[in-house]
Formats: sequence, C-alpha cells, structure tokens
Amino acid sequence: MTTTSTNENSTFDWPIRIYYEDTDAGGIVYHSNYLKYFERARTELLRAKGVSQQLLLEQQLGFVVKHMDIDFLQGAQLDQELTVKTHVSQLKRVSLDFCQEIVNLDGKVLCRAVVRVACINTSKMKPTAIPNFIISEFS
Amino acid sequence: MTTTSTNENSTFDWPIRIYYEDTDAGGIVYHSNYLKYFERARTELLRAKGVSQQLLLEQQLGFVVKHMDIDFLQGAQLDQELTVKTHVSQLKRVSLDFCQEIVNLDGKVLCRAVVRVACINTSKMKPTAIPNFIISEFS
Amino acid sequence: MTTTSTNENSTFDWPIRIYYEDTDAGGIVYHSNYLKYFERARTELLRAKGVSQQLLLEQQLGFVVKHMDIDFLQGAQLDQELTVKTHVSQLKRVSLDFCQEIVNLDGKVLCRAVVRVACINTSKMKPTAIPNFIISEFS
Amino acid sequence: MTTTSTNENSTFDWPIRIYYEDTDAGGIVYHSNYLKYFERARTELLRAKGVSQQLLLEQQLGFVVKHMDIDFLQGAQLDQELTVKTHVSQLKRVSLDFCQEIVNLDGKVLCRAVVRVACINTSKMKPTAIPNFIISEFS
Repeated sequence: MTTTSTNENSTFDWPIRIYYEDTDAGGIVYHSNYLKYFERARTELLRAKGVSQQLLLEQQLGFVVKHMDIDFLQGAQLDQELTVKTHVSQLKRVSLDFCQEIVNLDGKVLCRAVVRVACINTSKMKPTAIPNFIISEFS
Repeated sequence: MTTTSTNENSTFDWPIRIYYEDTDAGGIVYHSNYLKYFERARTELLRAKGVSQQLLLEQQLGFVVKHMDIDFLQGAQLDQELTVKTHVSQLKRVSLDFCQEIVNLDGKVLCRAVVRVACINTSKMKPTAIPNFIISEFS
Repeated sequence: MTTTSTNENSTFDWPIRIYYEDTDAGGIVYHSNYLKYFERARTELLRAKGVSQQLLLEQQLGFVVKHMDIDFLQGAQLDQELTVKTHVSQLKRVSLDFCQEIVNLDGKVLCRAVVRVACINTSKMKPTAIPNFIISEFS
Repeated sequence: MTTTSTNENSTFDWPIRIYYEDTDAGGIVYHSNYLKYFERARTELLRAKGVSQQLLLEQQLGFVVKHMDIDFLQGAQLDQELTVKTHVSQLKRVSLDFCQEIVNLDGKVLCRAVVRVACINTSKMKPTAIPNFIISEFS
C-alpha cells in the first residue's frame, strides 16, 4: 500500500458558532459536539475539492470514521466563534488521516484531534478504494 | 377515509433518564430533545405491538412526523427520571395521531404534545397505506 | 398586557447547511433537528439586534420556548442548503411570538412553525419581563 | 501524585437501545453518538456508587472529558440492543481513566475507548481534587 504525504501547509479553515443546542448544564460545549464540528469541516474541505457526499451516497460510497485521538483542552462557551483548522496528513488507498484543531478568535486551541476516515461501500458496509478523482485532489 | 378511535385508557408508559447530553447552558433540558423522548416512546409502543422499525425500513416503509403541537410547561433537569405517557388518539389509513405527555416522578406534566405521524414509502418519499397488521394492533 | 404587532415585512433570513449529523437512517433530516435550525435563526436575529444570549445568561436571563406548532411538509436531505425565514409576529411583556419557515433554494417550504418564547429568570426558573432594550428593538 | 489501580474485573454493564435519533443517512449510528453512550454508562456507574452529578454540579463540581482514544470497529443499526462495558483503569487525585467497550448481543465489540475524565470547579473552570468519598468508592 502506497502512502502519499500531503503538504502540511495547506490548512483548510471553517468557521463554527456555538448555540444553546451545543452546550450542556456545565455551561460549556458538550464534548461529543466537537466531533460534529470536525466532521462539518471535513465535509466542507471535500466540498471545496468538488466532492459531494450526497452524490457519493447515491453510489453507495461513504466515508466512516475508524479512529480518533482527541484532546479536549478548554471548553467553548455559548455564542463563541471558533475556527476548525483541517489538513490531510496521510492518504492511503482506502483511508485518509486528518489533523484537526478547533481554535478561538485568539488562536488558542480548544480541541485537537487526529482522525482516520475510511471509504466504505454502504450497502455491504465493507472497505473499498477511495475514488481516483478524490485521491488526485489530495495528492 | 374511515377513522377508528382507539381506547384512550390504554396508555403506554416509557421511562427516560436525563443525562448531560440532554441539557443546555440554561441548566435544563434543551427543548428539541423532548421530541426525541416522544419518538423513543412511540417506537417502544410499536415494538410492544410487535412492530420493528428496522424491518419496516428494509421494506422501504417509514413513519414520519407531519405535525406537532407542543407545550413546554416546565424544564427537566440533569439526573431526573421522567415517564413518557403515550396513547393513540386517531387512526387513519395513512396516518396515526398520538397524544403524549412527559411527567416527573410526582406526576407533574413537564411537556405535552399532539403528534401526527404518516406512513411513507422511503424510496419515493410518498405517503402510503399503513400495513394492515399495524392497523389491527391499534384498532 | 399591551401587545405590539411588528411589521410582517421585516423577515430575517439565516442560511443552514445539512450535514450527516442532521440526518437519520430514513435518509432525511431527523425531525427534531428543525427546532435547532429555528433556534439558531432566532439567536442570530437577536444578535443582529445587538442582543447577546451569553450576556443575558450572565444576568440570569434566558429565553425559553413555551409552545410550538410545527408542520413538517417535506424532508430535507444531506448537503442541502436551506434558509430559515423568521419574523416576530407578536410582542408582549414576557413573551415573543415568532413565525418561522425553512425553505429550500427553490423557495419551497419544508417546515413551518409558530413559536412562543418567554423570558425567564434562570436562577428562579420564573417568567420575568423582557428587558426594555430588547422590546424597543422589536417595536 | 499517587496512583491506585482498581480491580479490572469489576466491569459495569449498561444497556443502550438505538433509535432513529442515533442514526444517520449512511444507515448506521452517527459516530459522535457513541461518546454519549460512553458518558451515560460512566454516569450510571457513578450513580451505582452513590454519586449524583446534579448534586456535584450544585457544589460547582463537574467531571469533564480531557482525552479520548476511540476505535470505531463496526457500525450499529437502528433497533439494535447494545451493552456499554465500563471499568476504571486508573485513579489519580484529579482524574479518572475509564476503559469502555460497546458490544452487541453476540458480544462483538463495535466501539472501544480509553477516556480520561478530570474533576473541575465549574465556576472557575479549573482542575480540582476529586472528592474523597468518590476516591474511596473506586479504590
């Protein structure tokens, strides 16, 4: 299996706003919601590269998260504006690794994750090769 | 279209526990989450009648909510034990009406809803007749 | 209690994008999530008027939903771009009524709601007068 | 800082049922929802030891997740019954480590996580010592 490193400088930024729906009774964002923000940013990075997840899904193709290593460094609060910073750190035949950070307006990192996403056939729920046009976008 | 009234006395009770995931920064349950509890209770009422939503889905059948009228009377808090009380108030060829209440351990009503659910063909996203075996369970 | 009708022409538009997190196994948006989009739009309308919910919360003031009447007309799908259209239809001393619609890019209405929101003291969980500077923004 | 290993044999089991709210358009459970199930199980383990999170919160004490390492091995489906298996693997003065697995009725592991949870003062958002009565429950 060949591995292609992408240019770490090409970071994709996506803005997030914190609403009541995101917070919990502790007064800060409920921890699992950061995973949603990471996924929104990966989706928008794919969209910026011309990849529609709805079109993939109609071809029984989907990306599923296989592994995450996450540091929750500081809680975000209601009304905060955050940025999700994303880059692809590794590209394989059936999986993509993303490094992602959520930063506040001062650039302070609130949450950091390394995410492995695999391409699957959604009818068989089996790994399958990432389509070539996606591979070439990230190479 | 014929309409069958079901016996209003046959109320189905389903327990709910409030976790951090359910609350928001105001210290109480985020309002849209009550709709999840109502849906869990409808699902469990159907299951108690022998209806599996996963089996329905494999036949391209699903129930979708068409209308809700909801009163949010008092906010539920972290750790509270609640009961969802459900009964079918009207049964038509393609839709079911449910009356649902969420009560605390003292029997106080925190949230109340009237919910219209329609049967659809999930591949065409069109209304379709409720299967006869479900109709007969609620008649 | 005096009631002031606001100008129905002053509709506030807020864009929404549908992600995987929003959908369910039926292939469309899970019904309770529309309530989140309505709340995001009300929050942004308040923000556009200079009202910060985080600042209100620090003064033990919050807006809670008391009643909703919702029509779910058509299911939204993954990747869709929607607009939440919001206007204040009634303004009272302790409550605000909003009329809200979620429309797709063709202007078709997917979901429509009338929402009553009340101002509460979050430490006592009791209704309290809406602050004057908010009243004057909507009068 | 002293570290106490707990008996790895004392595993706590908590049942989970999958509803529509948990799934996404790919037909399986949306990945961030597993974090909610892990948290429900940790809460119930604490409750079984006599610890109420609501009471802790009233004393400005809360547990926050600081780190998670998660393997998503196989997607869960609508209607499935799962068990969250939890044990405390390490106990320190301000943090607890949990090993958690989500298994189906055949005992197959669908998701596995190592979770570090820290005790904080919720008004200062600073780490604080875990109360002694909790420490003694897990020692």
